[in-house]
Amino acid sequence: MKLTILGCYSATPRINTNPTAQVLEINNHMFLIDCGEGTQVELRRNRIKFNRIKHIFISHLHGDHCFGLVGLISTFRLLTRTTDLHIYAPKGLKEVITLQMKLSDSWTNYNLIFHELSAKVSEKIYEDDKVEVHTIPLDHRVYTNGFLFKEKLGERKLDMNAVLNADIDVAYYRKLKQGADVPDNSGHLVKNSEVTLDPKPPKSYAFCSDTAYSEAIIPIIKDVDVLYHESTFVEKNAMLAAPTKHSTAKQAATIAKLSNAKQLILGHYSTRYDNLDVFKAEAETIFPNVVLANDGKTFEF
Amino acid sequence: MKLTILGCYSATPRINTNPTAQVLEINNHMFLIDCGEGTQVELRRNRIKFNRIKHIFISHLHGDHCFGLVGLISTFRLLTRTTDLHIYAPKGLKEVITLQMKLSDSWTNYNLIFHELSAKVSEKIYEDDKVEVHTIPLDHRVYTNGFLFKEKLGERKLDMNAVLNADIDVAYYRKLKQGADVPDNSGHLVKNSEVTLDPKPPKSYAFCSDTAYSEAIIPIIKDVDVLYHESTFVEKNAMLAAPTKHSTAKQAATIAKLSNAKQLILGHYSTRYDNLDVFKAEAETIFPNVVLANDGKTFEF
Repeated sequence: MKLTILGCYSATPRINTNPTAQVLEINNHMFLIDCGEGTQVELRRNRIKFNRIKHIFISHLHGDHCFGLVGLISTFRLLTRTTDLHIYAPKGLKEVITLQMKLSDSWTNYNLIFHELSAKVSEKIYEDDKVEVHTIPLDHRVYTNGFLFKEKLGERKLDMNAVLNADIDVAYYRKLKQGADVPDNSGHLVKNSEVTLDPKPPKSYAFCSDTAYSEAIIPIIKDVDVLYHESTFVEKNAMLAAPTKHSTAKQAATIAKLSNAKQLILGHYSTRYDNLDVFKAEAETIFPNVVLANDGKTFEF
Repeated sequence: MKLTILGCYSATPRINTNPTAQVLEINNHMFLIDCGEGTQVELRRNRIKFNRIKHIFISHLHGDHCFGLVGLISTFRLLTRTTDLHIYAPKGLKEVITLQMKLSDSWTNYNLIFHELSAKVSEKIYEDDKVEVHTIPLDHRVYTNGFLFKEKLGERKLDMNAVLNADIDVAYYRKLKQGADVPDNSGHLVKNSEVTLDPKPPKSYAFCSDTAYSEAIIPIIKDVDVLYHESTFVEKNAMLAAPTKHSTAKQAATIAKLSNAKQLILGHYSTRYDNLDVFKAEAETIFPNVVLANDGKTFEF
């Protein structure tokens, strides 16, 4: 997996900071998560090919998470895209986009497929043979979902020395990869575990923004490899976090700890902070493995 | 008047080029004309104070002219604006903005006043004691208006030597400035033209984008001081201009010539051209005083 941060600041786009948008590259997918104003320019700046984006996940309908979407949809049209585009977003966004298309008399020349979200509990919204995406219901001022991206457990790997020693016909290799016990050439059953190795452990990534501190998400993101959790504020401004339903760095770290995440990425910073190190320092008092998102930064895991 | 070009390219925002937006400073107003995606960032880059913008004029509802508006409206709210904001735009934009506000549960804390345009003939849409704004109906794929900004003729200036020689009481100065003949201290009528000077000639600016070549606009913009006219293409790509209802540099220059404009500013370039000099050279074969708009460029007149 590779995560590219296109924007990780809250509220408004500025000269050197962008609102929320990120691209998760996972098993040949390029999933776009949120799409604040200016996202299409940041995609260009980070040399991400527009045509590789086939699925866009929108957490909620505050402008700093979705105002760049209609422009991106229009640009796809101008670039004569033909690939289907799937958008997973709270109910309502389809109506806005459709109205804007209608008023500009600019229908797309590709299939634009909305998957409108309104469930209050976690649901699986995407699945193929290698990846699943689940919503993570968050606690914000408007209906908001985070997204959990999970690789599926791959096939078992053949331990070729053991397979050859056991004298198993090549016709059974596929069954071995699927975990079955198979007969050798003399008809004796060979235990799968004796001739195969565990597949690479599947990785997972959870995107949680925007949200107040919410332990309700812990069962959903339990044991996640990488958790992106918003930290709009630090504790000295906690009085601002509560009414706006945002989190502090300490709260983000507490969620990372309680959910047994392996790594925590912080983001969605208020632009009131000149130095982001205060976020990292505060989170590290609770959870050891903390990194800071920043626009243009990439993470591989 | 001072014109600041925030963006003057067609179609999509890119790393170094912005869609249409410009600010006209005229008699202490800061009029924002069009508002493509990224306009709020360009306002910051050009150090234009958000609070000075009280009137926004939107030509049409193609994305490269209006997709930045909802973000700007939201940012004004986040910056706790209290000043009224007037938006002059084709019918429909109010519905889009209202829907987006509703879905994000983010009503403005200032008065947002829409003036919806649907007339097919030129109309006066703004007037105060010093400035008027009129629509310029354009010929584009959707309902589109350009805008003519006109200073009003100011008061006549007192020729103080002549006024004192004519022995006119100070109580009549106001009437003199208004153009009236007034009595001197002996009761003889003094002709206004003998003791006053013409006011500074009022300036005018016409913004015409997007549009096909249209001589219908000439009576409206006749004798304009500065004409901004789109030139999306040059003549060798004229076959692209006609079906998309855009203009070439030569066509823009022809309109400048026929309307007796003093100066022509070209803009709304297709991003297919690496060198903008071709636009200027082509226009100058028809009309002598041509300048090229570019993002961040300012013009004083």
